Amino acid sequence: MLVQQILNSKPDKEVASVKPGATVRDAVALLSARRIGAVIVSSDGKRVAGILSERDVVRELGRQGPGCLDQPVEQIMTSTIVGCTKSDSADQVMERMTEGRFRHMPVMEAGLMIGLISIGDVVKARLMELGMEKDALEGMIKGF
Amino acid sequence: MLVQQILNSKPDKEVASVKPGATVRDAVALLSARRIGAVIVSSDGKRVAGILSERDVVRELGRQGPGCLDQPVEQIMTSTIVGCTKSDSADQVMERMTEGRFRHMPVMEAGLMIGLISIGDVVKARLMELGMEKDALEGMIKGF
Repeated sequence: MLVQQILNSKPDKEVASVKPGATVRDAVALLSARRIGAVIVSSDGKRVAGILSERDVVRELGRQGPGCLDQPVEQIMTSTIVGCTKSDSADQVMERMTEGRFRHMPVMEAGLMIGLISIGDVVKARLMELGMEKDALEGMIKGF
Repeated sequence: MLVQQILNSKPDKEVASVKPGATVRDAVALLSARRIGAVIVSSDGKRVAGILSERDVVRELGRQGPGCLDQPVEQIMTSTIVGCTKSDSADQVMERMTEGRFRHMPVMEAGLMIGLISIGDVVKARLMELGMEKDALEGMIKGF
């Protein structure tokens, strides 16, 4: 299973993003309204400056208190981004996410973001694949 | 791979919990300090009243603003809990987490919590298992 297939299987392909100067409050409103775990920080929706996740928000809330909500996202976002390409495998992506302890990864092509996948997307796609393999095997057994 | 093995493979077995009357602010401090995604809400650390996750906090921050930090956790926690047992398989747990779109599951025995596993723990354990299977296969091939 490749990242391309995981992207195809996502019902909502639009990547939620905010500009670097948006406040953490704005980003929280978007995370909350769309029930998502992270937003991409980007001035044009294609070049990735960082990612702001639920974890980043909660960590800063713990450190600084609610004052962090008025800061620009670029001050608390994760800016060292590990990305992947369409042709990476689900297993490679799971391994990188597990090692790095993060849950979202932009899919990059020639330096521009073409999608975003989460650990949930990867696991869901893997389970679907396992289900299909099982059905295929059962079909073969019944065919004999 | 069973839930029991996933629990055994966790370096930190202690489950972080807060009492139902603790404030969201207290829970955020714990999530932030321990770099974890959820705390169990329980008056005795064994009987589960609910779970409070990073997602719950961010959702309420988006809805109510920072005022939610002064509320007791029991007001915003998720109280409909899907648990598992030691003898459930990793695949069953992944499927339930994916369907329900949650990332943490208490491991229950006779109505009491004996551990907590996250989607990250499950994926990590599965990857370790796949690695061991590969090593075993390679060992067999080299043995011929």
